[in-house]
Parts: sequence; structure tokens; C-alpha cells
Amino acid sequence: MSLLVVGSVAFDAIETPFGKTDKIIGGAASFIALTASYFHKKVNLVAVVGGDFPKADIRMLEQHKIDVEGLQIKENEKTFFWSGKYHDNMNSRDTLITELNVLGTFDPIIPDSYQNCDYLMLGNLAPNVQSMVLHRLKKRPKLVVMDTMNFWMNIALDDLMETLKNIDVLSINDEEARQLSGEYSLVKAARKIMTFGPKFLIIKKGEHGALLFGEDKMFFAPALPLESVFDPTGAGDTFAGGFTGYLAKTDDISFENMKKAIIHGSAMASFCVEKFGTEALINLSDAQIEERISKFSELVQF
Amino acid sequence: MSLLVVGSVAFDAIETPFGKTDKIIGGAASFIALTASYFHKKVNLVAVVGGDFPKADIRMLEQHKIDVEGLQIKENEKTFFWSGKYHDNMNSRDTLITELNVLGTFDPIIPDSYQNCDYLMLGNLAPNVQSMVLHRLKKRPKLVVMDTMNFWMNIALDDLMETLKNIDVLSINDEEARQLSGEYSLVKAARKIMTFGPKFLIIKKGEHGALLFGEDKMFFAPALPLESVFDPTGAGDTFAGGFTGYLAKTDDISFENMKKAIIHGSAMASFCVEKFGTEALINLSDAQIEERISKFSELVQF
Repeated sequence: MSLLVVGSVAFDAIETPFGKTDKIIGGAASFIALTASYFHKKVNLVAVVGGDFPKADIRMLEQHKIDVEGLQIKENEKTFFWSGKYHDNMNSRDTLITELNVLGTFDPIIPDSYQNCDYLMLGNLAPNVQSMVLHRLKKRPKLVVMDTMNFWMNIALDDLMETLKNIDVLSINDEEARQLSGEYSLVKAARKIMTFGPKFLIIKKGEHGALLFGEDKMFFAPALPLESVFDPTGAGDTFAGGFTGYLAKTDDISFENMKKAIIHGSAMASFCVEKFGTEALINLSDAQIEERISKFSELVQF
Repeated sequence: MSLLVVGSVAFDAIETPFGKTDKIIGGAASFIALTASYFHKKVNLVAVVGGDFPKADIRMLEQHKIDVEGLQIKENEKTFFWSGKYHDNMNSRDTLITELNVLGTFDPIIPDSYQNCDYLMLGNLAPNVQSMVLHRLKKRPKLVVMDTMNFWMNIALDDLMETLKNIDVLSINDEEARQLSGEYSLVKAARKIMTFGPKFLIIKKGEHGALLFGEDKMFFAPALPLESVFDPTGAGDTFAGGFTGYLAKTDDISFENMKKAIIHGSAMASFCVEKFGTEALINLSDAQIEERISKFSELVQF
């Protein structure tokens, strides 16, 4: 059951009240693929970087058994770069720099060996690029999960609505769900968004957890209350990586199994925020992951 | 296992995007006692109203088997009155009017028949009045639960800290927990607040649910995602009423049973916000309550 991850592989420079980083590996697809690799050993990556992207970071992805045949390297161009600074409470941030670089002309080429993928995770990208990936796959995957953000709702809503028609699971945050639906109640927002195409909707609420809607059912997973959140960058993508990685591993797309996938995503996101960038996702043991997941059981079981 | 509820019985006038009310019955103790009455038939009330308080509302409390011997009626004075207007998203409100009236000189007299209570719920009141109740009880109750608010942290912090030394469970919201502890992380805030006296801490997060801390354990209950929130007034008190009513009924103050009490509190709060004021709490059937509680199981079980 191969999992194809498409999205950005980037440089991030992050400042939080706890410190700041130079350019480190970031981007939706990095977080998603790394996280999924803990559950599934057939993660294929389609992304683009510039010649400035460190070979050591690519080796790190390979060491996690991520197939990088689909990672395009534009030797004479620069990697997508994002820099942001978090405010004291970590719930809001300012974007300091966005340099699209290679991402501005990203043409998502699917290697032949990636065809026939069973699970597709479309990380946050321009919706027309996400659609292009779907059109280039000769066989419709068993499950298509997609992430997006308010930026695309503002500047490419028509493209976004078109892409939504062809996916199965949409993952967005609460404010984006409200914007996309025009409904304040998340229950009403979910019902409306599911008429746009997705059969399932995940609404991420950051430190307040995540909701899953579908098949007239609703499931809620809290975020694990933590002593300290060090850096929230990539938490949503890590969540998506845990969700899709677990589904690909178990190859079961029932609502009941999606609940478990949500818990796996939440557990992985709780690791992510404890260190800068992808740092916490590099060397996790199965035992650590199991322990974190059992904390979720304790937290909600009554 | 008698439950003593002490707090305000008041007039509220509420305006929300969905409508507005004239003066209707409100006040922490009204919500708490009404809600607790669904679980427990020995709810005793200590509160004060003026001669303007409708006899019909007192009869309504009695019809719920609430003992009103401790409800003082100051014939020549006026009932505490609060008026507020909610903003569009229901997460914030402006207080339009606060007339303390009889509450400004409230002397919480405990009828003899209320002595030997097993469970005490101190609704939001001046902390020195809450302490007075504790001092006037000849026997220390098995469990003392207390609610308070940021207002008292601002103007009567010393009194509040003194009262906290003598209670078992404190119920406050997330912003209040942060203010009282000086810690942003709710995990750190909880640890610190429990050094002030309470052995258990409930942190209410409104539409984002509630956390219970104690015995080095942590439990989380979501709020039920609703189609529409009609009026949030009294939701926190309703929660406290469900929590204490369930504990008094089951007479089990273990952490495990407190989890169930939290779920009962959350379920009752989800009814409360569906109508104005106490309206949704007047005529609930056991079947409706059971159904709502089973929705919580479905929502979090994986």
C-alpha cells in the first residue's frame, strides 16, 4: 500500500520565545513524509528543491526509507524559504520572509514507479498543482487526503473548489473551515464543506485538538496538554503524516479506523511541537510512539 | 448524601445574536442547583433574593426538589441583576449592567437542617463569603468544590488565596488559571494552583471542553460540538451542577468517578447553551440526559 506525499520541501528559519534557528529543513511534505515513515515503509515523495538544499537532509529522508526519486533538484535555483516569528503565547505568528523560489514554477512530475499508489497525501500547495497530481495518476488512489490554507481561499478559490470535487478527506483548521463555508458553527461548516466534494473533513483546532466528520458521524481527539510548546511549526503537517501513514499501514479507510489514525496524527504532532522544526521527528522509537498514544487513551477514557 | 449549593440567585437580561430576554432567573446557584437536581434529590440552597423575585421561580426550584429553606428573601430590597450582550461569535460578551443589590451584603446563613452536608458547592461569590460558609459548617464536608472568577483575583486575591487553602476542587476557566498561576501552559498552571490548596483542578475551556487535574493524572472532556449555541450564560455553572450532582448521587470521589462527573457536567452544559438562561434545564428527561452522555462516548471513543 504505497503512500505518495506531494508538497513543499523547504527551508524554514524560526524564532520563538525559546530561541531561533538558522535555515533548517521544513515544508509540508518534509513533515508529512518523515512522520508517515514511522508507520509505513513505502512513502514516495514528489517535491522540488534548489541546488542549495543540503544533500545531508536528503540522505536523512532516505534513511527514513522515504523514496526521493520524485524529489526534483533544480541545481541553479533556490529552495523555497519561509521565515516566521511566534508571539509569546505561540498561538499567533508573523511571517517575516516568504521566498517561493523553485516552488513558484513547481511542475509535479510523477515517476513511473510511483504510479498505482494507493494513498495520496496532497500537502498544502496551489490547488491547481494539487489537481495536476490527481490528473497525472493513471489510477485513482484508494484515498486522497488534502491539506490547504486560507491563502488559497483568498486568491484561488475557483481552483480550490475544483480540486475539492476530486478528493476524499480535507484537512483544514477551524478558521479556514469557517472561511470556506461561511458558517461559524463547525458542525454546520463541516456539513457544508462536505457538499463541495470531500466525504470526510478534519478540522484542526491547534492546542484544542481536532474533529473528524464523515458518514454522519463525528469524532474528537484532544491535543495532548503539554508542559511547554517549543515550536508549533509543522504540527498540522505532522498530524496529516501520522493520519495518512497509519491509514496506509493498516489499509483500512473505515470511519472507525480513521479515528485511530487521528489519534496517531495527534500523538505525532505532540512530539513535533516539543522541538524546533522536524528535530523531534528524526529519532523516535516505536516505544515512544506507543507510550504517547496510550497517554491519549488515558486522557479521554472514562 | 446531601449537597449544599451556595451562590447567587439573580435576574439576568441577556442579548445574543438570536434574540433578547427581559429579566429572567439567573445566578450561579440557580444553574448549579437546577442541574444537580437531575442527579440528586437532596439539594439544599443558600442564597439571597429581594422582594421583587417571583414566587413562581421559587416554586419552580421547589418543584425540582431543591430545598429553599436557606434562600433568604429581603422583602424591601432588590435582587442581584446582571445584563449582558454577546458578540456575534458568542465567545465574548459585554456586561451592560451589574446591580449587586441584596448580594452586596449577603450573609450566608446555614439552616440547621443543612448542617452535616456531605458535598458543598461554592458558586462564584466574594471569596470571604465562601470562606464564611466553610467556617459555619460544624462538620467539614467530604468534598468542597469551588468556582471563582478573574474579578476576585483582581480585587480580593488575598481572600481568595485564603479560601483556596480549605477546598478540594477548584473550577475556573483557562484564562483565570493563567492569571492565578502566572503560567501560560495549563499543565504548569494546574501544578502551581494545586500547591495553593485544591487537590483537584478543573480548567474550563468553553467550547473547547474541560480538563481535570489531580493525583498526578489528567483527564480531558470535549464540549459537544453543536449546530448552534443560543446563549452561553450559565454554562460553567451548569457544568459545576452536573459535576457535583453526579458526585453526590454516586458518593464516590475517586479520580475515575470524577471523570464521569466531568462528562455529566459537560453533557448538561451542552443543553444549557441551546436555550436562553435556565430554560433548557427546566424539563429534561432522564432519557434525554442518557442520550446526550452516550454522544460524548461516541465522540471520544476510539
